[in-house]
Amino acid sequence: MNCLEERIVKDGVVKEGNILKVDSFLNHQMDVQLFDEMAKEYQKRFAGKNINKILTIEASGIGIASVIALRFGVPVVFAKKSKSINLDGEMYTAEVESFTHKNINHVIVSKKFLTEDDHVLIIDDFLANGCALQGLIQIVKQAGATVEGIGIAIEKGFQPGGQIIRNLGYQLESLAIVESMDASTGQVYFREQD
Amino acid sequence: MNCLEERIVKDGVVKEGNILKVDSFLNHQMDVQLFDEMAKEYQKRFAGKNINKILTIEASGIGIASVIALRFGVPVVFAKKSKSINLDGEMYTAEVESFTHKNINHVIVSKKFLTEDDHVLIIDDFLANGCALQGLIQIVKQAGATVEGIGIAIEKGFQPGGQIIRNLGYQLESLAIVESMDASTGQVYFREQD
Repeated sequence: MNCLEERIVKDGVVKEGNILKVDSFLNHQMDVQLFDEMAKEYQKRFAGKNINKILTIEASGIGIASVIALRFGVPVVFAKKSKSINLDGEMYTAEVESFTHKNINHVIVSKKFLTEDDHVLIIDDFLANGCALQGLIQIVKQAGATVEGIGIAIEKGFQPGGQIIRNLGYQLESLAIVESMDASTGQVYFREQD
Repeated sequence: MNCLEERIVKDGVVKEGNILKVDSFLNHQMDVQLFDEMAKEYQKRFAGKNINKILTIEASGIGIASVIALRFGVPVVFAKKSKSINLDGEMYTAEVESFTHKNINHVIVSKKFLTEDDHVLIIDDFLANGCALQGLIQIVKQAGATVEGIGIAIEKGFQPGGQIIRNLGYQLESLAIVESMDASTGQVYFREQD
């Protein structure tokens, strides 16, 4: 098990409805020392990739992305979420449907901060249905930039996002892929990774 | 001039209406290497303080807070903003009026992640009227925790927030205090600091 899987076993809480609460270390309280260990793992997995920018989405992706960016020596751009879109042409926008909140958001990035010269590592905390991630990929494409890879903290392996993204040919690296959870025992089962 | 003031002079853009755009390095694209230099400056300014947790507010405070927390060796808790409040008693909440967006938000932190044992450094990117900051201070008080200090990136010295917070007796350290700006020349004038 890697550092994140170990931490999930120790401090993650499984709730009914396939909910995994990791708010004590990942997405409300944030253990940035853990994020730095995760950054080292991403460095190994994306070794040899020419990455000059990290793209994430507010809010809970920002902390992880920032610590990873520090180790990669590159800046972060975080996409903003908005109900409305600004049509002045200065922004890349993509529509994202949230399964959690049952609404449609727009994901927005200023054109100033993503261009065809960029080689992007996309980072986010969770991958389930992959909607947010597909919005980020759309935005990178609109910019004519290159997605060099996608780094996720926790992938829900029993939801379709991961397979959809891998089928599109992207190098998707999730540090913990949860195959199943049992709310009665609190047990979390991970997919074996090399 | 310190690292942040130098960067504001180089890349900040002054707009009509006392607006300072720093989205190329602070709050949309984020230069995390700059944040790490800023972290060293905060370490000097808060030397000798017993800090075990950093508190910030989503979204643009999270990146700065995470990089600072890495250097301080402590976790970050980020407060969430919400229109509605959850009344199940598991959250600390404070009301915050936004002058930018002309609405009232609630600032929310889970009771699990802030207790009377915590010695908190509050971090945020901007201080103008100080509304968000006062919400964060209220939440630390509700928890019975101690505010050891407040670290701000950019304070608008011509708005009242900084003086209000200092008058309350807090050690408030803003790395750049803007006294005035001139949109016609693009010039930014900083308050002299020791």
